[in-house]
Amino acid sequence: MVTTRARLVLEDGLRFRGADEQGRSILLDSGEGAVAPSPVALLLLALGGCSGMDVIGILRKKRQRVTAYAIELVGQRRDEHPRGFTAIEIVHHLSGEGLDPQAIADAIELSDTKYCSVHATLVPGVTVTSRFVIDPPAAGE
Amino acid sequence: MVTTRARLVLEDGLRFRGADEQGRSILLDSGEGAVAPSPVALLLLALGGCSGMDVIGILRKKRQRVTAYAIELVGQRRDEHPRGFTAIEIVHHLSGEGLDPQAIADAIELSDTKYCSVHATLVPGVTVTSRFVIDPPAAGE
Repeated sequence: MVTTRARLVLEDGLRFRGADEQGRSILLDSGEGAVAPSPVALLLLALGGCSGMDVIGILRKKRQRVTAYAIELVGQRRDEHPRGFTAIEIVHHLSGEGLDPQAIADAIELSDTKYCSVHATLVPGVTVTSRFVIDPPAAGE
Repeated sequence: MVTTRARLVLEDGLRFRGADEQGRSILLDSGEGAVAPSPVALLLLALGGCSGMDVIGILRKKRQRVTAYAIELVGQRRDEHPRGFTAIEIVHHLSGEGLDPQAIADAIELSDTKYCSVHATLVPGVTVTSRFVIDPPAAGE
């Protein structure tokens, strides 16, 4: 087994500073006037980041020239407590030179089925679907 | 259903900036020289933050005077891809004046079974266990 650790310390109100084993930290907050993402937003970001790091790594190995990459996540949660996610859609937006749609589809498939630890943790409780869009380069790129 | 959205943009290497719907953002990174927590660390922090916000909110309503609160998480992941979490232990460390252990136990139980959306999302795929420790106040408190 691989052991992963993390630690949080309450700062003020509902704001916590959370850090990994190397002390790299982020803020979490919720409620009125929150200054940082909430835990449920963080869960989506963990999933999107996990998938995104896999996908860009695979595409670089395949010599795909990605010039811009954004990931949007839309999650559906229960109305009643506990309001856990039931479904999450991940939409990958890529720009680049001569991108091969099949290479992108394969990279996403590999992440979703083999590499993404966060994805594997969420399934089977959550239905996760993925798709991608190749966007034209932004003006100036 | 409640809809929750998030978005990430690749900055450099494997570093992404992730933001919630209000634009509150964090960094995610992985690999050599990472400057921010990885997605799997973020998943632990989302769980710990979710539970911590519930617990401190409940304890304040119960007039418990908490002067320090830290949460440690230890997750076990599979050795083989996909290396999802199989078990996570949450340890709540609290300091305060005249803290009632039963009030703390009840608050954690309420979070784990009723309120914590991240906990509810992870179960049934992950075995999550919780316990707490009442620490003496640190010197100078």
